[in-house]
Amino acid sequence: MTAQGSALKAPGATLAAIRHQEPLVHNITNFVAMDLAANALLAIGASPLMAHAREEVAEVVALAAALTLNIGTFSPAWVAAAELAAGEARRLGKPWVLDPVGVGATAFRRDNGRRLSALGPTVVRGNASEIRALAGLAGQGIGSAGKGVDASDSVESAAEAADVLARRLDCVVAVTGEVDRVTDGRRIATVANGHAMMTRVTALGCSLTAVTGACLAVQPDAFLATVHALALVGVAGEQAAGQATGPGSLRVAYLDRLYGLSPEELDLAARIEEAVA
Amino acid sequence: MTAQGSALKAPGATLAAIRHQEPLVHNITNFVAMDLAANALLAIGASPLMAHAREEVAEVVALAAALTLNIGTFSPAWVAAAELAAGEARRLGKPWVLDPVGVGATAFRRDNGRRLSALGPTVVRGNASEIRALAGLAGQGIGSAGKGVDASDSVESAAEAADVLARRLDCVVAVTGEVDRVTDGRRIATVANGHAMMTRVTALGCSLTAVTGACLAVQPDAFLATVHALALVGVAGEQAAGQATGPGSLRVAYLDRLYGLSPEELDLAARIEEAVA
Amino acid sequence: MTAQGSALKAPGATLAAIRHQEPLVHNITNFVAMDLAANALLAIGASPLMAHAREEVAEVVALAAALTLNIGTFSPAWVAAAELAAGEARRLGKPWVLDPVGVGATAFRRDNGRRLSALGPTVVRGNASEIRALAGLAGQGIGSAGKGVDASDSVESAAEAADVLARRLDCVVAVTGEVDRVTDGRRIATVANGHAMMTRVTALGCSLTAVTGACLAVQPDAFLATVHALALVGVAGEQAAGQATGPGSLRVAYLDRLYGLSPEELDLAARIEEAVA
Repeated sequence: MTAQGSALKAPGATLAAIRHQEPLVHNITNFVAMDLAANALLAIGASPLMAHAREEVAEVVALAAALTLNIGTFSPAWVAAAELAAGEARRLGKPWVLDPVGVGATAFRRDNGRRLSALGPTVVRGNASEIRALAGLAGQGIGSAGKGVDASDSVESAAEAADVLARRLDCVVAVTGEVDRVTDGRRIATVANGHAMMTRVTALGCSLTAVTGACLAVQPDAFLATVHALALVGVAGEQAAGQATGPGSLRVAYLDRLYGLSPEELDLAARIEEAVA
Repeated sequence: MTAQGSALKAPGATLAAIRHQEPLVHNITNFVAMDLAANALLAIGASPLMAHAREEVAEVVALAAALTLNIGTFSPAWVAAAELAAGEARRLGKPWVLDPVGVGATAFRRDNGRRLSALGPTVVRGNASEIRALAGLAGQGIGSAGKGVDASDSVESAAEAADVLARRLDCVVAVTGEVDRVTDGRRIATVANGHAMMTRVTALGCSLTAVTGACLAVQPDAFLATVHALALVGVAGEQAAGQATGPGSLRVAYLDRLYGLSPEELDLAARIEEAVA
Repeated sequence: MTAQGSALKAPGATLAAIRHQEPLVHNITNFVAMDLAANALLAIGASPLMAHAREEVAEVVALAAALTLNIGTFSPAWVAAAELAAGEARRLGKPWVLDPVGVGATAFRRDNGRRLSALGPTVVRGNASEIRALAGLAGQGIGSAGKGVDASDSVESAAEAADVLARRLDCVVAVTGEVDRVTDGRRIATVANGHAMMTRVTALGCSLTAVTGACLAVQPDAFLATVHALALVGVAGEQAAGQATGPGSLRVAYLDRLYGLSPEELDLAARIEEAVA
């Protein structure tokens, strides 16, 4: 195992750093996801700030350690605020995450995905359908017209799209599904945590995007930060599913586990593998 | 019992069809209700999509199997999007549900209720005060000026208003309360499930509206679909109340029961009766 | 103990009055807080109404017994609606609460805080950073440039700011933290309930603002009403924390306790002290 491989498989250090530094994470996210995103950030020890008014987003980006954008229920005013925020994050060298919810579903979402991905995200996080659609929009000609917000494609089917997108945008791309796949165009890793019942809770993926923002705030290697965010959310989710009698109690236990997991437990439970490009 | 009466009293078939078909349900709903509406749809096996931007609602209606509109926290931009979506649903022959939250409370809500009800909803779902107010707005002269969003009137007091509204709009009208009452102007049924503590959880009624959308997506007889939605939500709610120590745990258990209920259990627990017009 | 001191230490009477009168509380609040604010109001027996459209806020204020404004995710349209609502509440003599979330963080929030505090709130409720920032904006020259939405300053550090602000605005000011401090510029009280884990649940403070609205609706002495709201939320929160395994289950149990607490239990568990000015 390489030294980097060793750091890759130790997400506990990133969790410990979040609890120590309590980074402020600025989120411009959809109406359904706000509650769970904010609560997930608080549970892991970060400090969430939701702000979308064009009058203040640049100042909030300047205060924050990371930014996350989720296009789920965007209208034009929100897109404009998100563009402003992403531009400011880029100017200040702050990491930011793009979550292209349902990007293949409508012309409006395709346009929003195209515009925001052109602003240099540090990480793009989506399901297979979303990543394939976004890769297509980015002009690679390999995307599919993914439809809706659910992952109807398999993670494997989006592997090539993810690689191309990562190189094209010079960013990390995470495709989430039964086994998550992360690439920065050179390195590849898989994370095999999580539980099928998690797909029956709204905004769990959006909360992962917020958690990724917190990890980026404390871990400068965006590839590592993204893998660690996936492991943290996956482990908390699968442990929660083990206690839950349905998606209602899963969501409650998920927040409790995000709060209660020790770095050591996280390291032991994480199923992270380096993959060959 | 007639063959239809037998289908009426078997909501489990509708639940099974939702789990099998996983219909995409498009919701334009209020800010308070979004989370629970999306989670209720996921729990029963449907696929929720929240979208309100005028730039995309027509496309989303075209992708979806049903649409639900809830006027709770509408502002003019949301009303315009809802009108666009309802018009498109009508043009495409897709079922849609109107939830006229607090329609009697302000001139703005009365106007919104009048405009949206004129667009041909498949189902109108409200409490007694809302249905009486909407019937009054529809020009029957029998409505009352219901005030606020709580049901201060009894279901019985809205029976005539519901019948008139159903015939006038050629739709199904569901009045929810201690015993729910559904009519399409010819047929009448009552559903006697539910629990008083459910009125202490916000947006449970709104989640019923979303669930009604899912039932309409799989059951072409809108009267049956509505009765089955009421039974599903009522049974899940009363079983949840039986386990709960208050409205917080009721909400959690409600989602768990929506997820865990088998079609057979639902059929056994449903208290559906045909009534005489 | 004075007669007033005796009433001060008996928050149960205010809770009983809410359950008896079921006051309608109008809230214009942030997207993250809406769900918990509405559920907290329902749990204590009040009736929440969320409405922010300029077309209807004046009418809703007229229907309601109290108004609460929370600037958390405001954009200019929401600020305009809040100003309209506050002006109408003042005109009608109805109590209203201002929650200046993150008021020190950006120029936009400072401006919003300045404009709304000038409209005569009955109660201002914030953490130490927010109260210090607002006092500075109110032209006293003693505020600090608090940053973000978390309480980075201690309650004690905001004591002078609170006193000055209370006298300047002729209102009650509540500074919440480990021990809450309430003043109307003449009287001072502290409330020592609550639990550290409550800071890991989003919008609990916002739900306190909503609960304060309900208390103001039934208790005309705004100083007493505010102290009682703090005790009610603090006792429910600390009892919930005692049962919880993390912030997810704390939030659920908090709503259950708000619902289940008897006036007698509340009186026994409340740690309210009169302080010397």
